[in-house]
Amino acid sequence: MKVGFVGLGNMGSVMARNLIKAGHTLTVYNRTRSHAEELQPLGAKVARTPGEAASGAEALITMVANDAAVEDVIFGPGNVIESLPAGAVHISMSTMGVALSHRLVTAHRERNQHYLAAPVFGRPDAAVAAKIFITVAGPAEQIARCQTLFDAMGQKTFVVGNEAPAANLVKVAGNFLITTTIESLAEAFALIRKSGVDPQKFLDVLTGSLFAAPIYRTYGAMIASDNFEPVGFRMALGMKDNRLVLAAAEEAAVPMPMASLIRDRMLAATAQGMADADWSAIARISFREAGL
Amino acid sequence: MKVGFVGLGNMGSVMARNLIKAGHTLTVYNRTRSHAEELQPLGAKVARTPGEAASGAEALITMVANDAAVEDVIFGPGNVIESLPAGAVHISMSTMGVALSHRLVTAHRERNQHYLAAPVFGRPDAAVAAKIFITVAGPAEQIARCQTLFDAMGQKTFVVGNEAPAANLVKVAGNFLITTTIESLAEAFALIRKSGVDPQKFLDVLTGSLFAAPIYRTYGAMIASDNFEPVGFRMALGMKDNRLVLAAAEEAAVPMPMASLIRDRMLAATAQGMADADWSAIARISFREAGL
Amino acid sequence: MKVGFVGLGNMGSVMARNLIKAGHTLTVYNRTRSHAEELQPLGAKVARTPGEAASGAEALITMVANDAAVEDVIFGPGNVIESLPAGAVHISMSTMGVALSHRLVTAHRERNQHYLAAPVFGRPDAAVAAKIFITVAGPAEQIARCQTLFDAMGQKTFVVGNEAPAANLVKVAGNFLITTTIESLAEAFALIRKSGVDPQKFLDVLTGSLFAAPIYRTYGAMIASDNFEPVGFRMALGMKDNRLVLAAAEEAAVPMPMASLIRDRMLAATAQGMADADWSAIARISFREAGL
Amino acid sequence: MKVGFVGLGNMGSVMARNLIKAGHTLTVYNRTRSHAEELQPLGAKVARTPGEAASGAEALITMVANDAAVEDVIFGPGNVIESLPAGAVHISMSTMGVALSHRLVTAHRERNQHYLAAPVFGRPDAAVAAKIFITVAGPAEQIARCQTLFDAMGQKTFVVGNEAPAANLVKVAGNFLITTTIESLAEAFALIRKSGVDPQKFLDVLTGSLFAAPIYRTYGAMIASDNFEPVGFRMALGMKDNRLVLAAAEEAAVPMPMASLIRDRMLAATAQGMADADWSAIARISFREAGL
Repeated sequence: MKVGFVGLGNMGSVMARNLIKAGHTLTVYNRTRSHAEELQPLGAKVARTPGEAASGAEALITMVANDAAVEDVIFGPGNVIESLPAGAVHISMSTMGVALSHRLVTAHRERNQHYLAAPVFGRPDAAVAAKIFITVAGPAEQIARCQTLFDAMGQKTFVVGNEAPAANLVKVAGNFLITTTIESLAEAFALIRKSGVDPQKFLDVLTGSLFAAPIYRTYGAMIASDNFEPVGFRMALGMKDNRLVLAAAEEAAVPMPMASLIRDRMLAATAQGMADADWSAIARISFREAGL
Repeated sequence: MKVGFVGLGNMGSVMARNLIKAGHTLTVYNRTRSHAEELQPLGAKVARTPGEAASGAEALITMVANDAAVEDVIFGPGNVIESLPAGAVHISMSTMGVALSHRLVTAHRERNQHYLAAPVFGRPDAAVAAKIFITVAGPAEQIARCQTLFDAMGQKTFVVGNEAPAANLVKVAGNFLITTTIESLAEAFALIRKSGVDPQKFLDVLTGSLFAAPIYRTYGAMIASDNFEPVGFRMALGMKDNRLVLAAAEEAAVPMPMASLIRDRMLAATAQGMADADWSAIARISFREAGL
Repeated sequence: MKVGFVGLGNMGSVMARNLIKAGHTLTVYNRTRSHAEELQPLGAKVARTPGEAASGAEALITMVANDAAVEDVIFGPGNVIESLPAGAVHISMSTMGVALSHRLVTAHRERNQHYLAAPVFGRPDAAVAAKIFITVAGPAEQIARCQTLFDAMGQKTFVVGNEAPAANLVKVAGNFLITTTIESLAEAFALIRKSGVDPQKFLDVLTGSLFAAPIYRTYGAMIASDNFEPVGFRMALGMKDNRLVLAAAEEAAVPMPMASLIRDRMLAATAQGMADADWSAIARISFREAGL
Repeated sequence: MKVGFVGLGNMGSVMARNLIKAGHTLTVYNRTRSHAEELQPLGAKVARTPGEAASGAEALITMVANDAAVEDVIFGPGNVIESLPAGAVHISMSTMGVALSHRLVTAHRERNQHYLAAPVFGRPDAAVAAKIFITVAGPAEQIARCQTLFDAMGQKTFVVGNEAPAANLVKVAGNFLITTTIESLAEAFALIRKSGVDPQKFLDVLTGSLFAAPIYRTYGAMIASDNFEPVGFRMALGMKDNRLVLAAAEEAAVPMPMASLIRDRMLAATAQGMADADWSAIARISFREAGL
């Protein structure tokens, strides 16, 4: 397919590579142009604006940092919304707010463009191996049309509804569950460590029995060893995601005390100099509170 | 082995059956005698007191409801502590408090009896299939000696230390993680449902990607369908376990805000008539708060 | 003084009356014009735009519902920022965000206008009696110049700093303390009532001893009697104020678990049909959770 | 009146002095005998056991550290329950558990002794000045009979019911409100300080307006100045009181999230070396979390 790709950060750049590898034709854009130029030797064309990446594309993928960046790319100067051909599809793969996704539904519809929300689960190493999980929502025929793209980037695609914002909600709710897993492990390990029990043995029990899931293995190992390097997902990005779930909860009038707790943990971590640490480093707050 | 078995509730009775099936010789005791008599046709001898079950045993297993029951069985009238032969081992498989486990270490040592803590993870259906997980701590040679028993009852034994209370701590910390999983799923599904997204599709994403663990499948299905029958583990027992982790946290001076939240959820559930519901029914509190 | 007054809601209209009563010359503006016209018989001139109220004024007071309304009045069409004479002072008496207050500092300075933030504590009945408390921050000479206005509207003026946003922060932090008082009383009365003790007697102890403050008398009486009428301050406005303190906390990286709890209580109240109830009706959430 | 007085700590010794000063005849007992002997020059007789203090008394006052101490004094060796004359009244002025108070109701009734619960609000300096507040519950005629004693010790007596445990519940609920006041001030001052606003000015606003209550002046001053000396009430005692309110809440099935938060704050303070600090030093946890 003829694909425009906007946003070549940790995740976006490897996802774009996987698309190229699968034989798709890419025009790429990144604010910091050098990241785009790295893909030139592989055959990608480098665009000077997001609009240029969109122009003539069958599908335009956005994978940018936050809602403001999505708005800028889509509605800003040199933007996508004016350049994407009618009949083409915008696939927003960023983790973004439900409210903004509703706005994109309307904006694309007005221009006879199609729109899918397709946020992903997985850290950069999973993206490299095309092992991320893609959660997609939007019109069924557009999802079918883009399946070849999803297959090139991820190990599995989950279709969660035919209204795009459903996928964004599933993503922010899923990320919320990652954060509660981190915090609950943090509290449990604070207790285990302070009581003199071997944290590694506790981790073995968890991941060898009821909690035999990737998420417990990944974060359990970091927390058990009190070592949060390398940084897979920055605290500041985690705070952004926490804000998204809190905003969705406010919109729907749903109290989520655990989301509020995560907010306070991340603020404490930020206040204590961990804004650039991996988001699992909120465990350090539990450890410090316990006097460890 | 010649085994005394005290406590034939949902879990205990099937664990005892599995021991008999594996060829061990059992003398069983239960407060409600009829539960013990059900094992007679299988070859078990029925004791009139816990002490009688302990007398002459190589290993005495206790699987009773709470700390008070353990104290009663071990130290009460017709008790175990006076009857268990020197050199025999008491295997306490109940979920019980760390403090009481410390007390048992001392009491058994004074009488040259051995003592292992070996609490289990798994619901009754897992116990029937000998698929529970056993977490054991205590002297290595005693663990080795009892391995044949553990193998008859469970699918895997985790040795977490050579001081028995370590296993009790691991168990209460593990149960804490089950409760935080339930509560976090409850909040996430409240958001998903109230926002009009299909809860089953959300569950598919979770259990098909990062959260592919038994615990998410079991409780996710109950919460996604808002159906908490059949009752696998009663709320009142859940509160007991929550008290155990809070007591351990207080003893160690470790703040655990999520454990406190679970306490408040369980109290709300109890106040609203759910004391006998499955503990996962705390999800109903999140649903009600959200006006669902 | 020659005063422009924008925003004639419950609070603003009585504050404007008190200014007229004290001999000041008022030009008033309100979005719903009829509220402005009610002040005509008292001698107020009615403006067609906020800018018209500002034009020629020595002081321009704004007392509007929220940040969006402040922005609209100051920066929107027919706005204040272009009409307020150089040398005149804008007194923002709304409860508003710290960030917006910083923006006003800059905007007014650029035009050689002065700016004070002067939010108030007190419910409408206190405003009628000129018994509200005014918290003001900004340049000392401007505060001195406007003292006559403050004296006409309130019983006491607190100067909290010479940077306007300090007053906004004090206000949102003060409102936060009102909400924590409400919630703590709610929990205490839930316990008292459910345990069968007379709530009125408990209230007498509190207000007759350590908690002999207006806030405990006002809200204690409502909560003790489980009667939240009449509505003094709507839940939806309370949520707005809660958002302001959470925003300030996020800006400063300060975890405030009690502010998070209040958020969740207000969301639950909203979800359960209390968006238009008095904000103290969050007590009903505690009562319902306790099965009362 | 002929009064036995057991428990001469910070509070008890000054309360006993005030009784002597008012003309009552005291027989005093304290575990550390020297504290009792200090009252001899004032005319008190020193007893060797609690029972001896009770023997022959018209009223026996207990003012001891915790539930265990009350149990020991009343039911232990050389105890009160066997020595207090029929028709005499036991006035329990300690902060103690509701459950234990119920037990005392029964135990005294069986021996035709009377029983009042009369816990107090106020710190030691208030006790010296006979300015404490006394909350009493029990049979009306016994309260009337003891009024002369209450008048000698406190500035005001609140009768909250004719079942003694009501007073204990009011006391633990009142103490809960003191702790929530401390914590809410802690969070508010963390925000104020970190945002660069003068904490003293914020305190002036609070205590000069809606929060003009002793509790805000006392604790506000300590928290605003980040100075928690001298120690008026130790953290470890505060934890005891928190346990009492949590126990009452559990007994009544009332979720109290703020009580849970206080528990976690006090555990953090204890873990960080503040077990012997004033209980208001939990504010340091908020300050540290905010990076102050």
